[in-house]
Amino acid sequence: MSIVVVGSVAFDSLETPSGVRERVLGGAATHFSLAASYFTDVRVVGVVGDDFLPEHEKVMTAKCVDTRGIERAEGKSFHWKGSYLTDLNAADTLATDLNVFATFAPKIPTEFLESQYLFLANIDPVLQLDVRQQMKSAKMVAGDTMNYWIGAHREKLLPVLRELDVLLINDGEARMLSGESNGLRAAEAVLKLGPKSLIVKHGEYGSTAYFSERSFADGVARKPFRAPTLPLEEVVDPTGAGDSFAGGFYGYVASQPALTPEVFRTAMFYGSVMGSFAVEAFGTERMQRTTKAEVDERFLHLREMSHL
Amino acid sequence: MSIVVVGSVAFDSLETPSGVRERVLGGAATHFSLAASYFTDVRVVGVVGDDFLPEHEKVMTAKCVDTRGIERAEGKSFHWKGSYLTDLNAADTLATDLNVFATFAPKIPTEFLESQYLFLANIDPVLQLDVRQQMKSAKMVAGDTMNYWIGAHREKLLPVLRELDVLLINDGEARMLSGESNGLRAAEAVLKLGPKSLIVKHGEYGSTAYFSERSFADGVARKPFRAPTLPLEEVVDPTGAGDSFAGGFYGYVASQPALTPEVFRTAMFYGSVMGSFAVEAFGTERMQRTTKAEVDERFLHLREMSHL
Repeated sequence: MSIVVVGSVAFDSLETPSGVRERVLGGAATHFSLAASYFTDVRVVGVVGDDFLPEHEKVMTAKCVDTRGIERAEGKSFHWKGSYLTDLNAADTLATDLNVFATFAPKIPTEFLESQYLFLANIDPVLQLDVRQQMKSAKMVAGDTMNYWIGAHREKLLPVLRELDVLLINDGEARMLSGESNGLRAAEAVLKLGPKSLIVKHGEYGSTAYFSERSFADGVARKPFRAPTLPLEEVVDPTGAGDSFAGGFYGYVASQPALTPEVFRTAMFYGSVMGSFAVEAFGTERMQRTTKAEVDERFLHLREMSHL
Repeated sequence: MSIVVVGSVAFDSLETPSGVRERVLGGAATHFSLAASYFTDVRVVGVVGDDFLPEHEKVMTAKCVDTRGIERAEGKSFHWKGSYLTDLNAADTLATDLNVFATFAPKIPTEFLESQYLFLANIDPVLQLDVRQQMKSAKMVAGDTMNYWIGAHREKLLPVLRELDVLLINDGEARMLSGESNGLRAAEAVLKLGPKSLIVKHGEYGSTAYFSERSFADGVARKPFRAPTLPLEEVVDPTGAGDSFAGGFYGYVASQPALTPEVFRTAMFYGSVMGSFAVEAFGTERMQRTTKAEVDERFLHLREMSHL
């Protein structure tokens, strides 16, 4: 079943211990779409400027991502500049130029409205809620957010959380959202805010899913589940790792007939796999040349390295 | 098969977000012994002072730990004072009073010499090597070390590493020992220093094992293996978590007929399980009342929460 993803399509300028890159294709919706495209049809909704060229669009269409929902506006695309020189696990933001993204008002194309799976990448929660309302018939909604919205716009974020089947955030965001420093207690507090399930990402150490009694059709709450990551020889650029995790996770979920605990677990493994590709080169470089055979191979590797 | 463990038997004064405790029973050999005692016979070698009372010894003997190798010396036992108020994952050392430990020269009792499994807890590598030489017939040797020995006494540590079947250290120690910041490359560099296998502990996020072609009898190098930890409602006192992990790991290994990849993996899960009990109360409190049924239950839980 197809996924509609709404979020940023952007250019990133990056410095990491492996080098420097100027204005490479990035953005949460881009990374998400590419990763999810290995599992299901993806339809992307975003806004770009004059600097978004056919060659950039082709990165997505080459993976059969439907780009008809990418609006063109006058001006430049969203641009983010970040450095990982101090810590590969935490970017220092050097510049955020919203450009055409500043006035982004997502409009879901009519032909996308029948999609059953919606992913709300990290954007203004007011827009996330608006998109959810446009896509009333979506049977499953997953989403991301970030410290900025949690801290400064909590009251706008709360109604979004109540719409989510799966919220994907990292450790720091879970602590901030819950006010709890203990991981398990933080997760329990976040689930009380409304999402049916929660995935907390631990960067290079994997992720943990927490479930409410509303996570699955049988109404039974499950114990947490942990998915590992693959040890990698080199992390070139961590940008987009979380979005690629989300794409692998949600792409697999959407490819399956129903969300069972087994599907959820397997989806987390695919999330880890897609995240592992994302970080091996700058921007979308590594994902562009990733084959389905490589995805399958890493999935088996991840399973082998974590199962008794 | 029985294990001989050589290391500190100590008193710890602790402050954590959960409270303050003065001079509770601790020490690497103590935590290791209690955890390993659930799986096999354990014989402990250490030194204590006049403040080590029958009630302290009884904590070990109640778990059938053989304490005949605990030497009594005049003076006070090793005392460590630490605080976890800033960060539950990293202790601030407030005081280290070596006391009788300053002149510790471990002497393995004759009746212990036939033990096939030796664990060298974190002590001066010169003593670790000496113990290894006393226990020439031990067929398997595992050990721990710390940043102090890696940094200031590397040349003394290197011959110990070459004696080890399994080295257990944490992320920071692996980086320091290898000079590599990437986890996988750090592990590969550490294995080149001599240990047949390496377990790197990631604190609350689990552990990763790395193997050389000398890890198992078949001469085939295995891919890394990752074991998760259990999400816990409250971490009261992290002291001894690593030693309890080592005790669970090595205790299980010693209880099995041979070290196969399957045994190694299962042992890491038992390591996580024993570490999870250790941190739930101050000192040895939680482990003292842990039952074998609880160990089995958590093992199954850990398996369930990490397997597809």
